[in-house]
Amino acid sequence: MTMYDILTKKKHGEELRAEEIRFFVEGYTAERIPDYQASALMMAICLNGMTAEETAALTDAMAHSGDTVDLSRFGTLSADKHSTGGVGDKTSLIVAPIVAALGGKVTKMSGRGLGHTGGTVDKLESIPGFRTTLSPAEFLEQVETVGMAVIGQSGDLAPADKKLYALRDVTATVDSIPLIASSIMSKKLAAGSQNIVLDVKVGSGAFMKTPEDAVKLAEEMVRIGNMCGRRTAALITDMNAPLGAAVGNAVELQEAVGVLRGEVQGDLRDVCVALATQMLILIFGWEETEAEARVNAVLQDGTALAKMREWVVAQGGDGGYIDDPTRFHRSAHTFTVLSPTDGYIAAMDTEAIGRVAVLLGAGRENKEDTIDHGAGILLCKKSGDAVRKGDPLCVLYTEREYVLPEASSNYVKALSFTFERPAAHPLIYQTLR
Amino acid sequence: MTMYDILTKKKHGEELRAEEIRFFVEGYTAERIPDYQASALMMAICLNGMTAEETAALTDAMAHSGDTVDLSRFGTLSADKHSTGGVGDKTSLIVAPIVAALGGKVTKMSGRGLGHTGGTVDKLESIPGFRTTLSPAEFLEQVETVGMAVIGQSGDLAPADKKLYALRDVTATVDSIPLIASSIMSKKLAAGSQNIVLDVKVGSGAFMKTPEDAVKLAEEMVRIGNMCGRRTAALITDMNAPLGAAVGNAVELQEAVGVLRGEVQGDLRDVCVALATQMLILIFGWEETEAEARVNAVLQDGTALAKMREWVVAQGGDGGYIDDPTRFHRSAHTFTVLSPTDGYIAAMDTEAIGRVAVLLGAGRENKEDTIDHGAGILLCKKSGDAVRKGDPLCVLYTEREYVLPEASSNYVKALSFTFERPAAHPLIYQTLR
Repeated sequence: MTMYDILTKKKHGEELRAEEIRFFVEGYTAERIPDYQASALMMAICLNGMTAEETAALTDAMAHSGDTVDLSRFGTLSADKHSTGGVGDKTSLIVAPIVAALGGKVTKMSGRGLGHTGGTVDKLESIPGFRTTLSPAEFLEQVETVGMAVIGQSGDLAPADKKLYALRDVTATVDSIPLIASSIMSKKLAAGSQNIVLDVKVGSGAFMKTPEDAVKLAEEMVRIGNMCGRRTAALITDMNAPLGAAVGNAVELQEAVGVLRGEVQGDLRDVCVALATQMLILIFGWEETEAEARVNAVLQDGTALAKMREWVVAQGGDGGYIDDPTRFHRSAHTFTVLSPTDGYIAAMDTEAIGRVAVLLGAGRENKEDTIDHGAGILLCKKSGDAVRKGDPLCVLYTEREYVLPEASSNYVKALSFTFERPAAHPLIYQTLR
Repeated sequence: MTMYDILTKKKHGEELRAEEIRFFVEGYTAERIPDYQASALMMAICLNGMTAEETAALTDAMAHSGDTVDLSRFGTLSADKHSTGGVGDKTSLIVAPIVAALGGKVTKMSGRGLGHTGGTVDKLESIPGFRTTLSPAEFLEQVETVGMAVIGQSGDLAPADKKLYALRDVTATVDSIPLIASSIMSKKLAAGSQNIVLDVKVGSGAFMKTPEDAVKLAEEMVRIGNMCGRRTAALITDMNAPLGAAVGNAVELQEAVGVLRGEVQGDLRDVCVALATQMLILIFGWEETEAEARVNAVLQDGTALAKMREWVVAQGGDGGYIDDPTRFHRSAHTFTVLSPTDGYIAAMDTEAIGRVAVLLGAGRENKEDTIDHGAGILLCKKSGDAVRKGDPLCVLYTEREYVLPEASSNYVKALSFTFERPAAHPLIYQTLR
């Protein structure tokens, strides 16, 4: 077996065998196969695709290229949730306590924010004292006792994916559904959960711009998960506007606590209920109506909120912020963006809104940037809402007063207005299992 | 302009602009663009192709990536010939003196043999004293006075092609018509001739296995040559059997002298006449019948033979070998391969016959191998010939007596026999201008 033969086969559109894919992944991770052969293979895969079997083999080989997390002590109860990334997406902070309150074991490794999308780890650090790094033993112990833990990526999970992603990033070979799917799923497989729910975002703030592409990616990931022995489901959810009203870190955490306190309704709560419902169906095999009823019950009776407090305190955070979310820090300078016109908000360039949040200090342009946890945006109006000239569209928070004119102007530019009531986007396009 | 954008365009099947292609070629030659981006581009080109304009731009950029030969002093008389490589292909040794005898200025830089194909430079070194290295001034001076010179590749012609070819060779991106065509033509353009005749071989001993592929390659190269301001023509010629009867070095030179002496007829002479005719049409604009008549005339009246002697002596070779070609060296051990059956030779695996010659010592497995100029094969029967069991099929010459059993067995295995007279292949499939 040689890399040359593997390249030739894929170039001619032939299916690679699992051992050929393993040969490539192991050789590339060990630096026996050079970048220039790997990039040629990535390009051939972008153009000729991969079968379900090839994609599963690639995912499995990458998942086993480094450390893997052993969650076997939790049997079939371990559960993980992954979002393909959006703006204002704080669902993990809400879904995990709901599922843990109902007996699931939620083990979540999250990333930091980069570019227009935020990261769960950054958001959690808005709570004074919160530790996003736990030792493997602490992590497992907490999942055992509390039912959940959320930490930053730790260990050397799927190093093949890391190396390959860096190469794809500079060779224009990112936008291939099988490659995106295997990249995401390799990390999920290495992270060890038996049940995986994927939240595939679609729209102006998501990597997938059309429902068709989002469905393809979701189908591919669900197929991979199931082929690799994990119970996997996916929701296709809307990202044509930020989810909820808050974009930032402390503001998002405050909003998440609001959902658990029963004070926040709307799209954010609805997506969280749907995600938690799917996780519980996977874990316990409940009927959908039963699962959804139990989710609503723990939201209403305060059990999920209590679980969040228990979790935050277990990871060193100040529980007082959960009891009184008005304590969350806001940056010093605020600015209210007003509507320049009467009419309806027809569409929001959600990615552009994510970039406004970065400009305010809530996110990172580059990996090494630090963030301002109090910076962000609170939306007053979203797509489909009627506005009058001079109505507040949103409030901006920042320590960088000098960016407010540009941030405000960019925010308005990210919106388009119409005089006719625009057609609404569905919030949840599809559920796949 | 970034390499990332160029990769994205080509991945999406869009046409690259000439300045984008130059940006790539210049950046890659200067090592500003890494191998892993270049290999991804090569794979995208293999799969998505290139337009005629892109291919011409790539060729032109590679031709200008290093030294170029200035033949302007010869005006429109300079002429070059290129063969895509075959077995027993000694046409350059015959065509060049014919064309020089008729007033063309033939400037040829040839390669050494590698794998199953021989090289003109190796063949010429069968003549004691022959120098295949001339200084640029000597080279031009000899073309001026003798009308021709044949030397090894000198200078740093088309270094971008050299670097890119080495990369394609290890990334399975060789077999793309636009990439093959631009690779060949970039060297021809850098070598400076105004008139270029291409001999595109097709069949079991050629890189192109089907007439369709050979025609595509020839069309692409003729188009490139013409777009880049050179008069270019191509012949598609048969390589389903070695050309002529000799495969090796001294044996091939002896056979070439035989054609010029009027002692050798058949396929080799016919292809040489056709190639020389096309060169003269390009150089002088003669009608085909006139050009062909003049070629036959210089073959019959000894002018072309005299030109060969003049050329060989000018490059330091012993003219006595031209006067008495029986002086050419033959290796010590010979073996006559006999037909195992009655019938006809239906087909010859010509590449395998080339490898038998390498086994005998006439060629190189690796670039650093030395060759035995006296080793080789003299064919007694070729495709289509009737044979009786026990008839001599060929005679093998070698200094390595121990290889004779394997060489003989491989030679017989390279042939297939039939009881029905097989259909003949055309010798010249097509002429393109």
